[in-house]
Amino acid sequence: MKKIINNPSNFVEESIDGLIKSHPDVYMLAKDNNRVITRTKKGSDKVGVVTGGGSGHLPIFTGYVGKGFLDACAIGSVFASPSVEQIASAIRNGNNGNGVLCVLGNYGGDVMNFEMACEMVAAEGIKTKTVIVADDIASANEEEKLKRRGIAGMIFVFKIAGTFAETGASLDEAFKIATEANNNIRTLGVALSPCILPEAGKPTFEINDDEIEIGMGIHGEPGIKREKLKSANDLVDDLYERIIKDSKLTANDNIAVMINSLGATPLEELYIVSKRVNENLAKSNIQNKKTYVGRYATSMEMAGMSITTLKLNENLKKYLFEPSSCPFWVN
Amino acid sequence: MKKIINNPSNFVEESIDGLIKSHPDVYMLAKDNNRVITRTKKGSDKVGVVTGGGSGHLPIFTGYVGKGFLDACAIGSVFASPSVEQIASAIRNGNNGNGVLCVLGNYGGDVMNFEMACEMVAAEGIKTKTVIVADDIASANEEEKLKRRGIAGMIFVFKIAGTFAETGASLDEAFKIATEANNNIRTLGVALSPCILPEAGKPTFEINDDEIEIGMGIHGEPGIKREKLKSANDLVDDLYERIIKDSKLTANDNIAVMINSLGATPLEELYIVSKRVNENLAKSNIQNKKTYVGRYATSMEMAGMSITTLKLNENLKKYLFEPSSCPFWVN
Repeated sequence: MKKIINNPSNFVEESIDGLIKSHPDVYMLAKDNNRVITRTKKGSDKVGVVTGGGSGHLPIFTGYVGKGFLDACAIGSVFASPSVEQIASAIRNGNNGNGVLCVLGNYGGDVMNFEMACEMVAAEGIKTKTVIVADDIASANEEEKLKRRGIAGMIFVFKIAGTFAETGASLDEAFKIATEANNNIRTLGVALSPCILPEAGKPTFEINDDEIEIGMGIHGEPGIKREKLKSANDLVDDLYERIIKDSKLTANDNIAVMINSLGATPLEELYIVSKRVNENLAKSNIQNKKTYVGRYATSMEMAGMSITTLKLNENLKKYLFEPSSCPFWVN
Repeated sequence: MKKIINNPSNFVEESIDGLIKSHPDVYMLAKDNNRVITRTKKGSDKVGVVTGGGSGHLPIFTGYVGKGFLDACAIGSVFASPSVEQIASAIRNGNNGNGVLCVLGNYGGDVMNFEMACEMVAAEGIKTKTVIVADDIASANEEEKLKRRGIAGMIFVFKIAGTFAETGASLDEAFKIATEANNNIRTLGVALSPCILPEAGKPTFEINDDEIEIGMGIHGEPGIKREKLKSANDLVDDLYERIIKDSKLTANDNIAVMINSLGATPLEELYIVSKRVNENLAKSNIQNKKTYVGRYATSMEMAGMSITTLKLNENLKKYLFEPSSCPFWVN
């Protein structure tokens, strides 16, 4: 285990503290909870957009707090759900008086704790609606879409809901556009190597030196298949076909694409992936309006990547492309 | 070797092609050279700002072509200097009729080839000036500053010179501010693990599982010392003291800071580093105006990080903080 850390027990707190000290104009610790980050400049009377999730995936979740993105985020321990109390605090802090849209990844603990937190704040008069992002097509069949995990596609939902919320939209309207974005995203990834949990000090899973696992989750959840490392083009073609089939994208559809590194996989390799994805899209005559390449949803130093497509309509395009402000988003 | 690549011999070309296909509104291949990237929307009559360097360090060098940054970049093979012809093409393409400022890292091959390319284009009537960035304090003593390598601090020089050039500054003025930025930066890094060169298929250096090397270069050049892995705070304190001593930063100086991952080291660890750096700066009463945290100058999947300080004056601050436009810079 070679990490630049101090006491592994303080990994999350020190990392949050560093985030705030690095970007004090963007992020602030909530006054009532040291595992909740809010915007430094609170929105006025807009609908709040709030998320929460485990640590170890930066920039997601905390990184996307900012104008045109999220109002607050509840931060769990590494790969663990935030508590009900932490989520309730994030909702309270993200509320500007007009209700809060909760956007979270589809993980058992997160979903359960958000439900309980929403009940708790309802008793205090805060109205909430929840969108559970489920974009990982490896984690369940299309018929069981509600069982799918949420991964990199979540960022598209944060962006669109967050930017739309700035226009003074109602909670119902924000819920509607976030749901639409959620329905239009598909993600599929591949894992090459595990990461090491700071406290456990050992890899999240084992994989041979010549093997990859298609569809493995960002916490090491089992994927669709484990196989020998193949060429970037063969790998992309495999993922691409599955995504296109599942999303039913056809010629002349407008989309945005995200090529996301799980951590260690460098930009050079992401661009080799992006080349093939864009070539395949061009062959299919699918109109890619923008490619996002980088680290959006990671598992610390895990090697691997994911491909996300978002089918666009005029509304989704508008709020995806309008400027937002956070240290992890280039307009 | 587990990389998402096709034929290792095509690593650079495919990666460049993917970069262009991903961001066609920003980057374009030069018509006369497939190892030169220019802006898609050429500047009007501004002074050109041009760089060049080896591949394998994205976002640097190529990534920083864009409005308020560079006009063109010559791209070498992995960890290898671009050729004289490639650099000459980058200068010609980056020239808008008012001369070209070359900004490059202090590496023997790069320096020699830029010199020859500048002579070549001078014969064609293109005036150039060159700033050789030398920010790595591990690579030579202060008395031999001209021998120092250029690493992450280069991005600050690109940013300031590039943004200043947009104001219609002359070549001499652009040279002056770039030189000033270069004199005011100090970088020191630490390597935890090597990367693997795609064509060679083996690690750039060997290092034990419990060892780190302070000051190792981004191509695996020897550092100051190899020692046992220590806590993040002890490590930061060591680097910090050396940087402060070398830069002669004192109370009330204004600075900007960059915490740069060499590739695999995740954001969580960079923020633990940034926390300590910012605490140390606060104790020294040095005024940190902005912290940049992320991947700026990498060695593909190498683990490790570097800390850069840039001493600011009003001018440097102005052009560092004014907006620029490229996929790897958040304003």
